Amino acid sequence: MKTLIRNGHIVTATDDYHADLFIDRGIIVYIGQDLQFLVPAADEVIDASGLLLLPGGVDVHTHLDMPFGGTTSSDDFFTGTRAAAFGGTTTIIDFAIQQRGHSVEEALDTWWAKAEGKANIDYGFHMILSEVNGETLAGMGRLVDQGITSFKLFTAYPGVFMSSDGEIFQALQKAGEIGALVAMHAENGSVIDVLVQQALAHGHTEPKYHAITRPPEAEAEATHRVIALAKMAHSPVYIVHLSAKEALDEVTVARDKGQAVFAETCPQYLFLDDSRYEEPDFGGAKYVMSPPLRSPDHATHLWRGLAGDDLQVVATDHCPFCMQDQKILGINNFAKIPNGAPGIETRVSLLYDAAIRLNRLSLNRFVEIMATMPAKLFGMFPQKGTIAVGSDADLVLFDPQATTTWGVNTAHMQVDYNPFEGYNAQGKVHMVFSRGEKIIANGQYLGRAGRGKFLKRKTFAAP
Amino acid sequence: MKTLIRNGHIVTATDDYHADLFIDRGIIVYIGQDLQFLVPAADEVIDASGLLLLPGGVDVHTHLDMPFGGTTSSDDFFTGTRAAAFGGTTTIIDFAIQQRGHSVEEALDTWWAKAEGKANIDYGFHMILSEVNGETLAGMGRLVDQGITSFKLFTAYPGVFMSSDGEIFQALQKAGEIGALVAMHAENGSVIDVLVQQALAHGHTEPKYHAITRPPEAEAEATHRVIALAKMAHSPVYIVHLSAKEALDEVTVARDKGQAVFAETCPQYLFLDDSRYEEPDFGGAKYVMSPPLRSPDHATHLWRGLAGDDLQVVATDHCPFCMQDQKILGINNFAKIPNGAPGIETRVSLLYDAAIRLNRLSLNRFVEIMATMPAKLFGMFPQKGTIAVGSDADLVLFDPQATTTWGVNTAHMQVDYNPFEGYNAQGKVHMVFSRGEKIIANGQYLGRAGRGKFLKRKTFAAP
Amino acid sequence: MKTLIRNGHIVTATDDYHADLFIDRGIIVYIGQDLQFLVPAADEVIDASGLLLLPGGVDVHTHLDMPFGGTTSSDDFFTGTRAAAFGGTTTIIDFAIQQRGHSVEEALDTWWAKAEGKANIDYGFHMILSEVNGETLAGMGRLVDQGITSFKLFTAYPGVFMSSDGEIFQALQKAGEIGALVAMHAENGSVIDVLVQQALAHGHTEPKYHAITRPPEAEAEATHRVIALAKMAHSPVYIVHLSAKEALDEVTVARDKGQAVFAETCPQYLFLDDSRYEEPDFGGAKYVMSPPLRSPDHATHLWRGLAGDDLQVVATDHCPFCMQDQKILGINNFAKIPNGAPGIETRVSLLYDAAIRLNRLSLNRFVEIMATMPAKLFGMFPQKGTIAVGSDADLVLFDPQATTTWGVNTAHMQVDYNPFEGYNAQGKVHMVFSRGEKIIANGQYLGRAGRGKFLKRKTFAAP
Amino acid sequence: MKTLIRNGHIVTATDDYHADLFIDRGIIVYIGQDLQFLVPAADEVIDASGLLLLPGGVDVHTHLDMPFGGTTSSDDFFTGTRAAAFGGTTTIIDFAIQQRGHSVEEALDTWWAKAEGKANIDYGFHMILSEVNGETLAGMGRLVDQGITSFKLFTAYPGVFMSSDGEIFQALQKAGEIGALVAMHAENGSVIDVLVQQALAHGHTEPKYHAITRPPEAEAEATHRVIALAKMAHSPVYIVHLSAKEALDEVTVARDKGQAVFAETCPQYLFLDDSRYEEPDFGGAKYVMSPPLRSPDHATHLWRGLAGDDLQVVATDHCPFCMQDQKILGINNFAKIPNGAPGIETRVSLLYDAAIRLNRLSLNRFVEIMATMPAKLFGMFPQKGTIAVGSDADLVLFDPQATTTWGVNTAHMQVDYNPFEGYNAQGKVHMVFSRGEKIIANGQYLGRAGRGKFLKRKTFAAP
Repeated sequence: MKTLIRNGHIVTATDDYHADLFIDRGIIVYIGQDLQFLVPAADEVIDASGLLLLPGGVDVHTHLDMPFGGTTSSDDFFTGTRAAAFGGTTTIIDFAIQQRGHSVEEALDTWWAKAEGKANIDYGFHMILSEVNGETLAGMGRLVDQGITSFKLFTAYPGVFMSSDGEIFQALQKAGEIGALVAMHAENGSVIDVLVQQALAHGHTEPKYHAITRPPEAEAEATHRVIALAKMAHSPVYIVHLSAKEALDEVTVARDKGQAVFAETCPQYLFLDDSRYEEPDFGGAKYVMSPPLRSPDHATHLWRGLAGDDLQVVATDHCPFCMQDQKILGINNFAKIPNGAPGIETRVSLLYDAAIRLNRLSLNRFVEIMATMPAKLFGMFPQKGTIAVGSDADLVLFDPQATTTWGVNTAHMQVDYNPFEGYNAQGKVHMVFSRGEKIIANGQYLGRAGRGKFLKRKTFAAP
Repeated sequence: MKTLIRNGHIVTATDDYHADLFIDRGIIVYIGQDLQFLVPAADEVIDASGLLLLPGGVDVHTHLDMPFGGTTSSDDFFTGTRAAAFGGTTTIIDFAIQQRGHSVEEALDTWWAKAEGKANIDYGFHMILSEVNGETLAGMGRLVDQGITSFKLFTAYPGVFMSSDGEIFQALQKAGEIGALVAMHAENGSVIDVLVQQALAHGHTEPKYHAITRPPEAEAEATHRVIALAKMAHSPVYIVHLSAKEALDEVTVARDKGQAVFAETCPQYLFLDDSRYEEPDFGGAKYVMSPPLRSPDHATHLWRGLAGDDLQVVATDHCPFCMQDQKILGINNFAKIPNGAPGIETRVSLLYDAAIRLNRLSLNRFVEIMATMPAKLFGMFPQKGTIAVGSDADLVLFDPQATTTWGVNTAHMQVDYNPFEGYNAQGKVHMVFSRGEKIIANGQYLGRAGRGKFLKRKTFAAP
Repeated sequence: MKTLIRNGHIVTATDDYHADLFIDRGIIVYIGQDLQFLVPAADEVIDASGLLLLPGGVDVHTHLDMPFGGTTSSDDFFTGTRAAAFGGTTTIIDFAIQQRGHSVEEALDTWWAKAEGKANIDYGFHMILSEVNGETLAGMGRLVDQGITSFKLFTAYPGVFMSSDGEIFQALQKAGEIGALVAMHAENGSVIDVLVQQALAHGHTEPKYHAITRPPEAEAEATHRVIALAKMAHSPVYIVHLSAKEALDEVTVARDKGQAVFAETCPQYLFLDDSRYEEPDFGGAKYVMSPPLRSPDHATHLWRGLAGDDLQVVATDHCPFCMQDQKILGINNFAKIPNGAPGIETRVSLLYDAAIRLNRLSLNRFVEIMATMPAKLFGMFPQKGTIAVGSDADLVLFDPQATTTWGVNTAHMQVDYNPFEGYNAQGKVHMVFSRGEKIIANGQYLGRAGRGKFLKRKTFAAP
Repeated sequence: MKTLIRNGHIVTATDDYHADLFIDRGIIVYIGQDLQFLVPAADEVIDASGLLLLPGGVDVHTHLDMPFGGTTSSDDFFTGTRAAAFGGTTTIIDFAIQQRGHSVEEALDTWWAKAEGKANIDYGFHMILSEVNGETLAGMGRLVDQGITSFKLFTAYPGVFMSSDGEIFQALQKAGEIGALVAMHAENGSVIDVLVQQALAHGHTEPKYHAITRPPEAEAEATHRVIALAKMAHSPVYIVHLSAKEALDEVTVARDKGQAVFAETCPQYLFLDDSRYEEPDFGGAKYVMSPPLRSPDHATHLWRGLAGDDLQVVATDHCPFCMQDQKILGINNFAKIPNGAPGIETRVSLLYDAAIRLNRLSLNRFVEIMATMPAKLFGMFPQKGTIAVGSDADLVLFDPQATTTWGVNTAHMQVDYNPFEGYNAQGKVHMVFSRGEKIIANGQYLGRAGRGKFLKRKTFAAP
């Protein structure tokens, strides 16, 4: 299969130029001027005049088909990756979960079974470690050999996912030795549990208490702590879904000292705020996620962090639960509301809108945080995350003049609400290629379930 | 003229891949795999196997043919740009000097006359403003229209170049309005003058007193001040030749707050230290430059700043004076030693060595600080500073396995000493192209005087 | 003259206890329980039951009988020090002004002439240096011998008081050598002058433009600068009338590093904000002082600085000009409004109110900032600033239950408005002693013009 | 009992003057000049000419008769408080320990039994909470009513004293409500345990590995964490035995923001460094304490913290174990060496020496950190910690000209080594009074076992 894309306005994390691009067998093989006079006959020629030609998005934080408190996140690997593709994302890394008393291999097998035959785009796995011991530490090494080069631990969710500081420290030490990257959910779960119990004891059961019981200081403290643990362990560390300006300050201070600390934030923290918890009729439950939405001033700092390289990645933490049947489980107790919200489809669009219409980021930086840096940090570059000869032809043709109105009716995620309902974003995903295959065009998904491949990722190297 | 470069290992600020590259009429027109089967007949085919293919270096801080205290810097636009080319640098920005009582146009004419017919590579000009008044402020606007989009002012050299804070503030305001970038020499000249007079009054005339009378705090103070002035003026600002960790701290703090502050350092501050002032027989005079060399711990911080984006550019401040006839003028009084040292040829080599052999920077970051960011900050991108279709074919073929031993005998700069005498750097410039023309090969300069063109630069845009 | 004060609630910077106190010949000679059974017959016995017994206030920043732009501050040493006494202040340090081309001795003679025969309380002088040269540097040494151990320089008022950085640096060096303390007015006058000219050029003549043209950043920059100069000069430094949180941050950072930096703020910056400039009918002119009033959030930080020892002193910068005849000079041009406001009488009262009613400071800390620390920093301790055996009996009996309503009609300052008009402060000055002499009682001044003595102050010692 | 002390050079945290002082029934009743002509006949008249008259030292961190790992600290309340008295300390607060499953009252009874009949000086208790639950939280309230107004928790010693963050948070909340102060041992015990196990697994059993396995970062992290917990709990917090500059930085940052954070350090961290762990023949065991001794640069920062009010208290953490029989338990395993070292007798002397001879602190500040601030922070002021009418006559006559040579032979602590062996300190405790009773004179203890009284302390008030 050969494809010629003509007259593209190619934008990478560094470059910005106009050229034609030729794809053969899924790989970008030529980039140049007036390639039509030069290249072999293409199976398809696409005129990209007036369109941006971008690297496909890389979303390194998704939870598809994930069990949570008796229910399961509402997008599986078919619906979730299809929605990603509609939104301009061509690579995801999902989280496999090692269960206490079970091996990492069991977890991996389970998640492979979830993804195989369903995934529409390429995917990798992080491995969540629910316990740290000699066996799981050894398992980290085995997983790296299989291309699972990142792990996730938690300072939150005592009794479920929370590891002790000593356990986190050992996982960081091990990761440092074997070239893996540890991703941390950083909130002080021990304090949060006290606050939750105190709130419930006072009869505070509404969704907004989810936010009130998870204060920014609890996130900042845990962020500081895992940075300190990583320093002592001589390993890099990656903070997931950073939401609070105080937590950003901790990352900034460490990076200023030269420590290898990286952090992602998510669109929900950039575009929404905690006034959403006041939505009537249990509507606040839509936004019950951890960390919670913050007061509006936090987003200002997060944008600054993205502009200035204290935040390197925007991922989604896509973890959808329907209001009906799922969120409703917590109608009488906010602590029972399944945590999470959808976003796998809206990320690239919202970021472009903010970058260009709201003037938050340069076009290069927009590409860097949505595709290049996540690919680099998680061992997928240059196969993913850029437009260069030899890279996978994961591409987005993006119409900068069109507009996208987001809502539950216009999105393809399998969930009965959209946190960005009614948002009018400048720009529109026009066409999407995954390894050279045109999978989105004319608003249709043209791929097939299972075409996405597992990505065996490389070990960590500082970008 | 058509050139095909085969099997290149292309490295840009973001990318790192292997491909062929085809140049036509000075422009990169195709990048791809096995281009030899595709492209028109090339006038020359070069096999780059085993070599890095890098963007040509961009040195935004040179002083060629510059009058200083009754003498003139020893490289003119011919010898200086030829040495640059030998060293892998294909673009420079030199400083034209508006004299008190004279117009900016007079200065520009003078510098054009210095460069025309001599320059071997492309060049632009910054304009030094020796006075700020209604006329020179208006002149800033006229210069921007001619592609002179950056200006330089000083907090040092009272009675010569030093502007008052109010004058600097007005220049920054004007620059902010017209899209220009102000480059600042930041040392507190008023205090330094006192220290110099006190040193001389105590009979301290040796070269080392040049350093002792220009303490890091004097640089840090002025750096803080110009950042504050830029903040009040709502304009970006660029700090030249930052040398002290305390000054870096000021830049870091401002950038952490989101202010548009940029800074360059120079190889001399990264590789040398103030122990050099102890060289016998007036040898310390070789290193009399402003700011002076610092104690060894400063360099550690500068490398951290480069790795972490608090410093964006490494330029040379190339300003050579021969020991014989020139430096000797200050044999009895360090204050009369012409300030400056050569470096236009050694920059790319030293940075590569530090990046790779000393493990200071990633390969991408090495390219970014020596070519991409200077080109972006000073309005020359994507014409200069990257390898992309449509860009000027300013290219360096670099042999990562060879070694370069620097010294006055191996360098081509027209000066009778080399600050890096005896330095063994990993890697070697193998071949250099300027707008597609092979100007360096086999250790020979193949271009001709005057082939370099004046660069009309664009206004400032945040990268 | 012997006085016994019974049942006092004595509060010092450290202590808080109940006791009797016996004064003989102006000195505190005994403190104890039930002294009436012990001590010699007193000429007067005062029952202080229910009253606080405090050290007399020490105001180290006043401008009495000061020429300014063709007029003179409206309180002279008689009316000013009487008002001070009414307000509970028993010691002041006023500023003598060395004029360009004149010796420091001339200045001192002039100011002695202003004070002698008029001062109602003890007083010292700082010397303002309008120029720094060999003669004035030598003069600093001579003045120290006469008990003038502090000097003031300016980074503001170009062409009038502003010194260059090199001049300030030399004064700081000299002060460090001879044990003097340099007090700095820290605003960037060079930038401010540009802003003032730009404002006037736009027809912005109202009082509020005084504040708009003196932004917090201009104060913060100068504060940072003088701290840096002091560091290079190896001398302590004292920042007068600090008003902006950004300036406070500079002091905090320096003190955290152990540098000998001290700073005062004034009640106007603690209690008032820049909304005052909106007062109609030229009313904003009342608040035209330098630095200007700031937006309300600044005061929050200043209170924090006082509570936490980043600010050590509250002085008044008492410099009154009547609205009629004086402030009116700037009716068409804010730059011609005499700078300054009255406050010598209101300071102790306002600080007590804030400390206790508004819970800003402990009672000990209130005493420390209004009496003890100013006395220590300026070489008057333990003669002034505390209640201890052997100290001058400068005492205030203060009624914590009564209330004081401030206004032009209730105050004794010779000026036709009061910035704190209508302020209801908890607590009331009940009686005041100066060197054992009861000078305020029953709302009457009982002293006599000229009873105040010149204080020959000691050299600086870190407290 | 009436005592007249003549010609004292009285120094408090604020004052510095010469006077006589008269004590009646244990209380300071008069201070004045030439009191001999005035006061009733004294039972004893002491001439203090040439001596400093200081408040008795207040040591708020001692562990007398404390069980630890099968042994007991070697000083009991008799020998320990006698040694304190010899050293110029007249008040201590010791730590009672609530055991898991036992009430706070049981602990209090146990510690009262240890102290009664033995204590030679006045004493209070902090209560260590080994568990936090409804019962112990309620117990906190009951203890406050009995004058036990401070509590201690640990982030170290997992399985023994370590509380979870949620538990610490609840204790802080409770303390904030009831006016108590929580003292925290801040080291990350969870990480330290991993490091200890790793060290032992590598066969590293010598004393120096105690220090290597407790890095400064582990202290800094925990310090940051407890400060964050206190902020969320809206309570003050007190950090015990702060040893690392990185931990100090955390305190400084919090205090700069106005948070009520207080911290103590100890003489061992000010005067000794980790080179001591190299002492041969298991000699390093003398210095096995937690936190451990640090590298020499830390002390420089601690002195700065004391000079600048980021550290408020110097206490001893006196917890002696003999080398013979006790320290020797860890001869084959550093983790079994009883933690602690003696210091109750040497504190005042060492601090005076450093303040005056080494010029680290002013005389006032020396008094403040060794007596006044500990008394204020822990609810004992003005009964203890100052020299003022009405205060307990806890006094030290201190000879500033004499010298003290410290060593196991010259000290009175019941332990077979002295960490400060051979230290020559300027100044010497000459005479000590406790509630007016002369208990130390001519190098003899003149009091009697059990004369010390339990101090019912007040609730916390910010100083």
